Amino acid sequence: MTSVEKRFPGRLPIRDGKVDMSHGSGGRASAQLIEELFLRHLDNDLLRRGDDSAQFGVPAGRMVMSTDCHVISPLFFPGGDIGALAVHGTLNDVAMSGATPLYLAAGFILEEGFPLADLERIVAGMAAAATAAGVPVVTGDTKVVEKGKGDGVFITTTGIGMVPPGVEIAGDRARPGDAILVSGTIGDHGVAIMSSRENLEFDTTITSDSAALHTLVAQVLGAAPDIHCLRDPTRGGLATTLNELARQSRVGMRIRESGIPVRGAVKSACELLGLDPLYVANEGKLVCICPAPQAAAALAAMRAHPLGGEAAVIGEVVEDPHHFVQMETTFGGQRIVDWLAGEQLPRIC
Amino acid sequence: MTSVEKRFPGRLPIRDGKVDMSHGSGGRASAQLIEELFLRHLDNDLLRRGDDSAQFGVPAGRMVMSTDCHVISPLFFPGGDIGALAVHGTLNDVAMSGATPLYLAAGFILEEGFPLADLERIVAGMAAAATAAGVPVVTGDTKVVEKGKGDGVFITTTGIGMVPPGVEIAGDRARPGDAILVSGTIGDHGVAIMSSRENLEFDTTITSDSAALHTLVAQVLGAAPDIHCLRDPTRGGLATTLNELARQSRVGMRIRESGIPVRGAVKSACELLGLDPLYVANEGKLVCICPAPQAAAALAAMRAHPLGGEAAVIGEVVEDPHHFVQMETTFGGQRIVDWLAGEQLPRIC
Repeated sequence: MTSVEKRFPGRLPIRDGKVDMSHGSGGRASAQLIEELFLRHLDNDLLRRGDDSAQFGVPAGRMVMSTDCHVISPLFFPGGDIGALAVHGTLNDVAMSGATPLYLAAGFILEEGFPLADLERIVAGMAAAATAAGVPVVTGDTKVVEKGKGDGVFITTTGIGMVPPGVEIAGDRARPGDAILVSGTIGDHGVAIMSSRENLEFDTTITSDSAALHTLVAQVLGAAPDIHCLRDPTRGGLATTLNELARQSRVGMRIRESGIPVRGAVKSACELLGLDPLYVANEGKLVCICPAPQAAAALAAMRAHPLGGEAAVIGEVVEDPHHFVQMETTFGGQRIVDWLAGEQLPRIC
Repeated sequence: MTSVEKRFPGRLPIRDGKVDMSHGSGGRASAQLIEELFLRHLDNDLLRRGDDSAQFGVPAGRMVMSTDCHVISPLFFPGGDIGALAVHGTLNDVAMSGATPLYLAAGFILEEGFPLADLERIVAGMAAAATAAGVPVVTGDTKVVEKGKGDGVFITTTGIGMVPPGVEIAGDRARPGDAILVSGTIGDHGVAIMSSRENLEFDTTITSDSAALHTLVAQVLGAAPDIHCLRDPTRGGLATTLNELARQSRVGMRIRESGIPVRGAVKSACELLGLDPLYVANEGKLVCICPAPQAAAALAAMRAHPLGGEAAVIGEVVEDPHHFVQMETTFGGQRIVDWLAGEQLPRIC
């Protein structure tokens, strides 16, 4: 720590200080923020080098790259914070190709006046999530905007990973006859955020399902190697994700409402809030579409994983020139489950 | 275009419409914004697939990854716009390791109410810069925040590239005796932004030097393969970049003020604005540190490139336990060139 003492006139006032414009200057104050806050929590050999990029060896193969901007409000919520979410959100997009995530990059846009103590909690949340996932944040950037030109903290994370040989997963690969699975209960994240935003209290606290799904994906792929599609139903919820996949694959889907796992507390909260759980965002669930003969194996593999205990087969892919998602309701009727129209839950991720 | 007509009730009102919260919903409006605006300009096979990640083959080797948040104000400025800048800024960070850039990811944070026509200009600017550089934007994300919670458009870009065998460039590799070169005039970008912000008129319009430097890097590496350090002096300017490199490499530096290229108009504007060109941001220049015997070849290679016509050798690396950057002034004196302290030019990139 001697080098720090010598280099900066005093230590960064994390306990009661605030982000100011100089932290985005690229000069001494930026260097101190990076060294005493970001690097202290996210520390690893690549990040510590202090170059404007990270360098690492990669094997030949198929790489995936994905980026996600996180603007969730509030920044702290039951079950997580924007830092952890920014890790999970991007890792999951990488994992949905079947890839093993390798590295993350993180870009922070901070609002002048934001408490450094809150920023530290967020960076610590990011660090804990990255460590738990085994995927380091190896490069980053920080910018500061004037008070009133941002909203506390926005984080954009980008991830890369490698797809194992033989795995061929894409949104356009669903085929009539395929089974549709979901890895657990839906709606938890969106309802947790809404409840926290509206200061609603329920009998049970509903917490976000925010989690990194790459180990679940690896386990399911081990049991069902011919998976056609994987996607995490985030913004727009399960309904929108199924419609996206139906459209990309030029197929229809039939799902059964009774088969879709939804927690009782989430169901009640949705009724109170006027939300349909089908359209509510998730951050730790995935939709899996695979050939019917592998569905049982995929389901068993999901249920054997800590993040897939309540997995279920919820329907099947059908031929349909209109690419409709149709649902058999719990009352025995049929309805078309459309794309999310308008905005149901702003800034949910 | 038939599929578009069928899918969305009407076309996106680019001419007179505005970004609204539904464009960040992940539902139908988001899909339309992506399809009719982003995809139309940035179109390529990987982006068009519509998955949440892009997939591509990579050879075995050393990869670099870099990310940069762009919050520049104003969004349009003499010599560029935030879209082009977001391409150049990240490509340059990748190129400063000697790497050949391969792919870009782009994340947009839009403020509710931002004119779609302006967004289109920005995306077109990004597309033109990416095409000119030969590096496609292969994956992206768009979020929308409420009016007053952002500032028009923020763009975070992430780039990856591969380092050619034998190239070993890093901030900690400067050695006493090495030559220090700069690829051209300094201060153009920062002064262009400040002039545009303050509505200042000079005899000559000063334009940003915003440019992608990877072809310049390749040309210089061809002539001087043992380059030790490359860095683009963006925020904090040349002074801060040299201090960063001195600190990382645990050396000192001696530079000559008379050798540093600065345009006359930039010099005058800096006097008027009370700025020191050494601390003013650049977006199309690089600092190169190489063994003295290769300096002449590096300089000739720079000067032979369209972006390096005014390149110059500006000093040399020395031993110095204090890691000071010292400058021989035009008046023959000596002064220490310190890190940028405080904030000189907020939101310059």
